[in-house]
Amino acid sequence: MVDIGAPVNIESFYKFTDDVSNPELFESWKPKIKAYLEDLDKESPAQYKIPEKEVPEDLDEKSFSTIEYLKDTMYLTDSDKKITEMSVVDLAKNITSRKLSSVEVMNSFAHRAIILNQFTNFASQFFIKEAMNTAKLLDEYINNTGNVIGPLHGIPISVKEQIGMAGKITHGGWVAWLDYIPEEDATTIKVLKKLGAVLYVRTNEPQTLMHLDSNNNIIGRTRNPYNSLLSSGGSSGGEGACVGGRGSAIGVGSDIGGSIRAPAAFCGCFGLRPSTRRISTAGGVSSGRGQESVVAVEGPLAHTAKDIDYFMKSYINAGKPWEDDPWCMPMPWREVAKPEPRDVTVAIMYDNGMVKPHAPISRGLKTVEGKLKSSGVKVIKFEPLMIEEAYDVCHQLYTCDGNNAQKEMLKPSGEPLLPLTKWAMSMGNGDKCLSITENRSLNARRDTIRAAYNKYFIEKKVDFVISPTYVGVAPCAIENGIAGPYYWGYTSLWNLLDLPTLVAPTGLYQYPPSDLKDPSYKPRSPIDEIEQNKYIPELFRDAPICLQITGRRYFDEEVVSFGELFEEIMKNKS
Amino acid sequence: MVDIGAPVNIESFYKFTDDVSNPELFESWKPKIKAYLEDLDKESPAQYKIPEKEVPEDLDEKSFSTIEYLKDTMYLTDSDKKITEMSVVDLAKNITSRKLSSVEVMNSFAHRAIILNQFTNFASQFFIKEAMNTAKLLDEYINNTGNVIGPLHGIPISVKEQIGMAGKITHGGWVAWLDYIPEEDATTIKVLKKLGAVLYVRTNEPQTLMHLDSNNNIIGRTRNPYNSLLSSGGSSGGEGACVGGRGSAIGVGSDIGGSIRAPAAFCGCFGLRPSTRRISTAGGVSSGRGQESVVAVEGPLAHTAKDIDYFMKSYINAGKPWEDDPWCMPMPWREVAKPEPRDVTVAIMYDNGMVKPHAPISRGLKTVEGKLKSSGVKVIKFEPLMIEEAYDVCHQLYTCDGNNAQKEMLKPSGEPLLPLTKWAMSMGNGDKCLSITENRSLNARRDTIRAAYNKYFIEKKVDFVISPTYVGVAPCAIENGIAGPYYWGYTSLWNLLDLPTLVAPTGLYQYPPSDLKDPSYKPRSPIDEIEQNKYIPELFRDAPICLQITGRRYFDEEVVSFGELFEEIMKNKS
Repeated sequence: MVDIGAPVNIESFYKFTDDVSNPELFESWKPKIKAYLEDLDKESPAQYKIPEKEVPEDLDEKSFSTIEYLKDTMYLTDSDKKITEMSVVDLAKNITSRKLSSVEVMNSFAHRAIILNQFTNFASQFFIKEAMNTAKLLDEYINNTGNVIGPLHGIPISVKEQIGMAGKITHGGWVAWLDYIPEEDATTIKVLKKLGAVLYVRTNEPQTLMHLDSNNNIIGRTRNPYNSLLSSGGSSGGEGACVGGRGSAIGVGSDIGGSIRAPAAFCGCFGLRPSTRRISTAGGVSSGRGQESVVAVEGPLAHTAKDIDYFMKSYINAGKPWEDDPWCMPMPWREVAKPEPRDVTVAIMYDNGMVKPHAPISRGLKTVEGKLKSSGVKVIKFEPLMIEEAYDVCHQLYTCDGNNAQKEMLKPSGEPLLPLTKWAMSMGNGDKCLSITENRSLNARRDTIRAAYNKYFIEKKVDFVISPTYVGVAPCAIENGIAGPYYWGYTSLWNLLDLPTLVAPTGLYQYPPSDLKDPSYKPRSPIDEIEQNKYIPELFRDAPICLQITGRRYFDEEVVSFGELFEEIMKNKS
Repeated sequence: MVDIGAPVNIESFYKFTDDVSNPELFESWKPKIKAYLEDLDKESPAQYKIPEKEVPEDLDEKSFSTIEYLKDTMYLTDSDKKITEMSVVDLAKNITSRKLSSVEVMNSFAHRAIILNQFTNFASQFFIKEAMNTAKLLDEYINNTGNVIGPLHGIPISVKEQIGMAGKITHGGWVAWLDYIPEEDATTIKVLKKLGAVLYVRTNEPQTLMHLDSNNNIIGRTRNPYNSLLSSGGSSGGEGACVGGRGSAIGVGSDIGGSIRAPAAFCGCFGLRPSTRRISTAGGVSSGRGQESVVAVEGPLAHTAKDIDYFMKSYINAGKPWEDDPWCMPMPWREVAKPEPRDVTVAIMYDNGMVKPHAPISRGLKTVEGKLKSSGVKVIKFEPLMIEEAYDVCHQLYTCDGNNAQKEMLKPSGEPLLPLTKWAMSMGNGDKCLSITENRSLNARRDTIRAAYNKYFIEKKVDFVISPTYVGVAPCAIENGIAGPYYWGYTSLWNLLDLPTLVAPTGLYQYPPSDLKDPSYKPRSPIDEIEQNKYIPELFRDAPICLQITGRRYFDEEVVSFGELFEEIMKNKS
């Protein structure tokens, strides 16, 4: 039995009182879950699969790197590998110039995604036949007209399952929603289709969509492609594993507390939490209907900052989501050139003062500081600003309806509550429903923090804050995610503030001999203790180290273009 | 005694139960009110005032037109009249080219504003000495440098009193807030000062800021400059009277249910309710702290659509309010050329199906239809869409905190509740505080209506909807506003939908022989009956007829540029 640093007596932290699970009732849902999983299997074409014996039986007991496996495997052709390792920008160029057909591209990604799924369990639904038909039509179109249908013509894009698709079960991780089949595509799906994207897979997420890990009673747990014992993050953990393992060139997740960024960081890719109202969230299944205090967003995960930029530009400028969803703003995605290092000031948050980052994250931040400085970027230290206040306000807001919306979605199936669901339902005041007046007072406190951060950026002339995405690299997630992320403060801060935040890989990986545990550190609080106890250096070997880059509200373009510079600088040898 | 069509048994509609007034406590506040009014008088320089005998004693019993008086009066010089009748754009040109000094301009507006106030009681606070000093400094600046300080250099701008000003009492119409002196300017004030505007007067508003009339226990009632018996509108009624009577070239109001548009319409000028988050509301006194369901906005009132455009462009593009208030979006104000009539499709809302507009409004709409059609604009009829649903959702949202915020602001002074306060506190469920879950459900219903309207614009290819601002022209407002506007549905619809809406004068005025009452009309509901009973043609003679022009969310620029075309077309003889 691996020591995973799971918290002891986690029950003592639970503030929710009303466990709506009902084992007897849940029994009656099991046939529906079975049927759903059978469909998933049926839609995973046999010709793409590797023999079952290739997949270790002890993935949940022993670290396994799917990334390494896919590098070496002979089950993927060289062409498959080449295509699936291309950037979106290059794929688009090759498709536009007809060097690659949409069918070829789709075939390679389908192949890799199916294999990746055998190891990581990232997919909720495949529909590859449908995708191949779409790809054929796209090829016909370009062959007949010489033109692409849109800027995403032929690009295979994975999407988080909670984003509604017409005619397809959309459950969002809630068992009871296995009955729900939307009649209409979500706005994002409409936009992607309009732009020529090829959709072929929907990806896993946690029960309630409120874990920074991805596990539910339908699909189970998604494994990290770098290390099968670790979490792929959540709630867009299926996207993390899929994009991280290059099962898709780019994917769409959603984020209300870190749900794009934790998966991107844990799975070693870029992930953008845009400012609200740039990418539509209409037509998604969630518990957040009508909730406006901390607003969820959708956004992309990809392998380069340039791909993130390409997606955002395509989605917004060509997709015009506001024609379908008036919540989206007709605010064009601006062309912002990669800045000159000397024009940039970065503040680094080494420690937010609440929960100290683990050794690899601290090393990542130090390395970033050094490389940025050598490149000419001005670097200052970010002094923690209202961190505990922000945490308190944000986590109260997550549960301020007394978890009513969540319980209403959980109850009809009686499904058992997973440990991280209990944790999320224990945030703030747990099951205590606040009054509208209290909700407004929290909003007002939030606005005070927003004003303070805005002032910080303006008065200190800081362009970007670089911070940990999470206390550590991907935590362990076996045993129902019990050692998964408990402390969301590093990501949820930026949700509360609604600041655009890009997760970017540093190019560094956890390395036990360098990233020792500091035995003298005294945890500051019970939550700090929980997180510190999880740092068992050997457990995290080779996990990628990724950080957050945050800019001013609606300066998403600047954040992404600095992401390009960051990527370039981090690749420099020095 | 004039028959004003006041509703009978209005008490039967009251849904609030908790009257927080306390006559004894209120007595203790009277000296503070007296001191405040003495300051107002002290700051109204004697040299600008007309002799008291010039002001009729029976302004509240007999119709008096301040507009006509100011046209003819010899107390204003020809130069005063010429300057105060200029557009903002022309004032800016003349100041920039040094044909006019800021001091001259300020002097003329101060003069006219002081006289206008003697008749209409629109002002809460004057600070003309301070303004003259600012104007002098601006003149020195341009004389020394040859440059203006900003696009509003030397433009006298009136602002609604609830917008906080450093060092000045800011009460928002609540007696208890006579003790509140902000330390910092509101963002809007900072922006205006930065752009070179000259501030010299703050304007009246109603108790609670929730009447479409302007009356409170501090300043009393503001009269309509066209007819002293009528309402100047509300809650930015002081702005309506001030701008309508050209006591300022342009003014800033705020709007959560019609509060910019009713005053603009009643006082015969343009008024823009922008989409949310383009103009800052930070630093204003209101009961809306943390309320995000129907969001208040600030916006300009002026005499031409071009002036509205000039203000918005200056405020947003040069003012960059987001540097002070992160709620504001860094979304530039776009240059949008006045459209060609043949490229425009307008849908006219003749009647929303709930409360039928009075005769002059119907005539206005018919005339507009004719003139637009002759000019080549495509005109269709707007078929009422979810009107009752929108009214229900919006009016529940106004009071969903059980009026808690209002009562907390009213209670410390014990001030008596005015009739329209009681009416506003009776909207929706009155004193019944809803749960957070109910609030979210109302938000979700709101979002459904928003989606339906967005679809309407897109699918019908409608550019703008033209609708009544209110059931009638300005209603009578003597006797504490008891015959003032009760039905907000024509304006509040656009707040709920967050659609940019410009009030524009038609150039027409109520004329009793043309605008007869239809004696055969059977009211559809009690609220319809209340509003229909108020139509007493003789009472409204010469009141301006102004309508609303509404466009798609964040297409504010298109709305204003069509406003220019509308203005031009309505001036055509035909």
